[in-house]
Amino acid sequence: MTNQKKVLTGDERKRNSKRRYYTKKRAPKKAASLPPVEQEKVRISFLGGMNEIGKNMTLYEYKSDMFIVDCGLAFPTAELPGVDLVIPDFTHVINNQERIRGIIVTHGHEDHIGGLAYLLKQVNIPVYATKLTIGLIKGKLEEHGLLNKVKLVEIKPRDNITLGSFNIELIHVNHSIPDAVGLAIRCPAGIIIQTGDFKIDTTPVDGDMIDLPRFAEYGKKGVLALLSDSTNAERPGCTMSEKNVGESFELLFRKAKNKRIIVATFASNIHRVQQIIDVANARGRKVAVIGRSLENLVKVGEELGYLNVPKNILIPIDTIKNYPDDKLVIITTGSQGEPMSALTKMAFGEHRKVTITPNDYVIISATPIPGNEKMVGGVVNALMKRGVEVIYEKMYEVHASGHACQEDLKLMIGLVKPKYFIPVHGEQKHLMKHAQLAGAMGIDEKNIYIAEIGETIELTDSYIKKVGTVPSGDVYVDGLGVGDVGNVVLNDRKRLSQDGLIIVVATIDAHGGYVVSGPDIVSRGFVYVKDNEELMNAARDLACRVIDEQYDSKYHDWNSVKTKVRDEISRLMYEKTKRSPMILPIFMEI
Amino acid sequence: MTNQKKVLTGDERKRNSKRRYYTKKRAPKKAASLPPVEQEKVRISFLGGMNEIGKNMTLYEYKSDMFIVDCGLAFPTAELPGVDLVIPDFTHVINNQERIRGIIVTHGHEDHIGGLAYLLKQVNIPVYATKLTIGLIKGKLEEHGLLNKVKLVEIKPRDNITLGSFNIELIHVNHSIPDAVGLAIRCPAGIIIQTGDFKIDTTPVDGDMIDLPRFAEYGKKGVLALLSDSTNAERPGCTMSEKNVGESFELLFRKAKNKRIIVATFASNIHRVQQIIDVANARGRKVAVIGRSLENLVKVGEELGYLNVPKNILIPIDTIKNYPDDKLVIITTGSQGEPMSALTKMAFGEHRKVTITPNDYVIISATPIPGNEKMVGGVVNALMKRGVEVIYEKMYEVHASGHACQEDLKLMIGLVKPKYFIPVHGEQKHLMKHAQLAGAMGIDEKNIYIAEIGETIELTDSYIKKVGTVPSGDVYVDGLGVGDVGNVVLNDRKRLSQDGLIIVVATIDAHGGYVVSGPDIVSRGFVYVKDNEELMNAARDLACRVIDEQYDSKYHDWNSVKTKVRDEISRLMYEKTKRSPMILPIFMEI
Repeated sequence: MTNQKKVLTGDERKRNSKRRYYTKKRAPKKAASLPPVEQEKVRISFLGGMNEIGKNMTLYEYKSDMFIVDCGLAFPTAELPGVDLVIPDFTHVINNQERIRGIIVTHGHEDHIGGLAYLLKQVNIPVYATKLTIGLIKGKLEEHGLLNKVKLVEIKPRDNITLGSFNIELIHVNHSIPDAVGLAIRCPAGIIIQTGDFKIDTTPVDGDMIDLPRFAEYGKKGVLALLSDSTNAERPGCTMSEKNVGESFELLFRKAKNKRIIVATFASNIHRVQQIIDVANARGRKVAVIGRSLENLVKVGEELGYLNVPKNILIPIDTIKNYPDDKLVIITTGSQGEPMSALTKMAFGEHRKVTITPNDYVIISATPIPGNEKMVGGVVNALMKRGVEVIYEKMYEVHASGHACQEDLKLMIGLVKPKYFIPVHGEQKHLMKHAQLAGAMGIDEKNIYIAEIGETIELTDSYIKKVGTVPSGDVYVDGLGVGDVGNVVLNDRKRLSQDGLIIVVATIDAHGGYVVSGPDIVSRGFVYVKDNEELMNAARDLACRVIDEQYDSKYHDWNSVKTKVRDEISRLMYEKTKRSPMILPIFMEI
Repeated sequence: MTNQKKVLTGDERKRNSKRRYYTKKRAPKKAASLPPVEQEKVRISFLGGMNEIGKNMTLYEYKSDMFIVDCGLAFPTAELPGVDLVIPDFTHVINNQERIRGIIVTHGHEDHIGGLAYLLKQVNIPVYATKLTIGLIKGKLEEHGLLNKVKLVEIKPRDNITLGSFNIELIHVNHSIPDAVGLAIRCPAGIIIQTGDFKIDTTPVDGDMIDLPRFAEYGKKGVLALLSDSTNAERPGCTMSEKNVGESFELLFRKAKNKRIIVATFASNIHRVQQIIDVANARGRKVAVIGRSLENLVKVGEELGYLNVPKNILIPIDTIKNYPDDKLVIITTGSQGEPMSALTKMAFGEHRKVTITPNDYVIISATPIPGNEKMVGGVVNALMKRGVEVIYEKMYEVHASGHACQEDLKLMIGLVKPKYFIPVHGEQKHLMKHAQLAGAMGIDEKNIYIAEIGETIELTDSYIKKVGTVPSGDVYVDGLGVGDVGNVVLNDRKRLSQDGLIIVVATIDAHGGYVVSGPDIVSRGFVYVKDNEELMNAARDLACRVIDEQYDSKYHDWNSVKTKVRDEISRLMYEKTKRSPMILPIFMEI
């Protein structure tokens, strides 16, 4: 059933191709009812994670069976004001729900699990994942009131799951969260390896190195396609081991001497938190944790056995005043300078429970995600103004990436030896660079495929090609609204934020066609120029004149009057201020 | 008059201090009318450029004389929607205009000249600068209709300017624009060196290395204070020579083979443009320039002799179709991914004159300024999707910084050997790092001063201390409005951009206290929820009810009705959408 193929040599391929030709030519002559012998085909649809960082979601299809890998979210860019989250378009999944046998989740990061609750509200599909990932998914489902409505199946690396015609084995990988897996997806068309997010850590904190031998075994059997993590494809060399970060903590905790230590890190990085706790413990310091997501992680991590917390070391944040500075470590969120995070509030003197003093020693154990550099810099500056020593960015090895760099990526390709290579999980520049690496490893250029979001590709032993597109794209979550913010709203928001708004309001006698009250001018977010009152008066007079002219013309087509008012006032404002506020005429008819 | 002091030894200082003590004690006894012998004092006020990147402006004061160094602008952050530029607060300058003897401008970058026109509109002060800087200032003044109203004085490195009691010598430095200078400011209180923006380039493109000997000579004479550029204080090592970039161009132009080459770079970097032209010329390619600021630079640079353009190599952008791809280089703006720049338009297929094809080879000859990483990444992705090979960031040495790194900064401190050290031109983290470098060079911690914007410090031979503050801060330029956008407007814009706006409009009989027409609900930028119409109806009903209740209460205090309508509708919207749009009740009275 697993149909283990090996990579065909040139001659074998030639023979195969000849045989197909022969079959096709002969079959119709002998018996018209006999179906032509077709190659086995498997299809992959990319519902997210291609040409973007975030909202990873991939759909596999063999004959009538489908299954999904991951269902993540993306965080909104500055181009999406007011949007909370971005999730994939689920139309294709909903349209095919009776064919979908399950969802496999590779690990517990938001960009792989964050869309699940929104999907499972609409379709009921069993979810398969490892223990920690299931634990984190449970938290999500609970928030959305879905906890006991969905089948959650806990599995282990090297376990096999059968989903219709697919049989999938989980393969342990290293990443910045424990319990991450890659997948070996087997179906009659061949074996596909999807790495999931991974790094190669030969000295991982939990001692459990990525299962490279298993990847190699599949490589030996013959792999049809490899889908591999492209996040760090631009970075040369090998990814640093997480253990180096622990060594840096040892050095820095010594350098901090009798200061209070505050470490900011990603909430999901259990191994990082473990190392902070270990070093704190060795130096006789208590640990307090701040930030909802970190508190949750420590709770789940300890419950499920992923975090080993020595007795009595954790103290509630409210009790830190009972300990001298040199007996304390505070672990906090906010390593990306997020405006509402605990570290940012501390830096700007707005945190209720922690007051920063020059006797603090702050370690930002993270590198800024592209786009966050300025926010992180702002927090560093604010902390320094309070006289704090801050360790940040590349000053010491206080952060290790969770994604494989170039040499690691090449090693994976070399072990798996796929026929087809499909870089995933990255922007175009990451995918392209990863494709170049595969090319340098000897994979034929025509066997490397860079997909777009929404594409369905088909793979057989003899080709890889696009066969169609499916509905896909960004769905915005804005408060309780899902998919309710469209381009019109976003464009309005952008315009309002740039130039503000001028409202022209008037009460009009609909029959007589004259103005009963107003027009009045109300502005918000619009530049106050020096002679603002004068300008607003001029706008009012102009609106009056336009309305009067229309009255004289005896037309009383209020829509065209509105348009004229909008155009004229817009022109006046641009002339006087070089700005184009949104002009909103509102006429009340009585 | 220049009063050249040398650094006092411990004994000398002791003697001086004794003499002062003696004088103070004796003088009153001998003759009450005799003034005490005071130490000579010089004051420095920081009007911009401290704890920020941009809008550099420093004011020197000795007795009744003042002069200004630089008058720059800053570009607005994401926190300032709709703002075009940020300039310094000029209040202190205007209040002291009769004491100000001149403005010296160190070089022609926007963060040093961009505020000049706005200042000179308000006060008429002569401007001193080198030839290219004057050329660029002229362009600014022309835009603002000030060209012949201001005295512009062209000076050369090693020239001296006398401004009241001050005598200032210009010292040639290397930077990413030619004709940059540092200043040796002499007054009876001592010598102050202000480096301006600088790097140490031992192989500059124009062959004219920074005048380190002159800095060293002042160091030998004895320097009271050094104000030095902190931009790259976080970067270890030495800054790469601009010439290395030229060598990279040679390599890359060869690698581009018969493709068309497009190079994006900062508009002001004349030496970069020179190197592109030189390599293009050597390979028989014509050069076309796109982008208003670049075209202006090439024009000014050629006119003033800073750019050496071989005959017939420059072609108008409209004629590029007459040349094959392998005979063309296009130099363009947009190296920071700016949304309206030429390169961004090309990447997204929106440029009217240049259409990108897979036969293009794009070099982004810049590194992203913090905050621009995401925009630059977006342009790279878009270009790659068009099949273009893109050279960006650190792939090759296609960019050299214009600012001194740690080893260069230390060299400057070592040559100048100042008594007091004041890091300038940087955020807090840069200033702090620079201060640490000075400390490591042996400068006493109490002689290192990190200033805040708006501070006035006083320096004498025996102390450096803050003596006051002057009006300072950010003035926003928004269209034609200068300083007309305040926090209210910005907060409105931010709120509008996050959650949008709901207007409740009604016409009311002011005497009867009843509603004649409406209330109507108008929304902009507000999330459309699934049952939007229903929600808007509920809002209308709610507004009706609130107004009716108030009518029943016989109060007719329309302001309190408005407040109640705002509160109630706000509550409804939050409950139904978890969003807080701006609620704007407008009541027309008839």
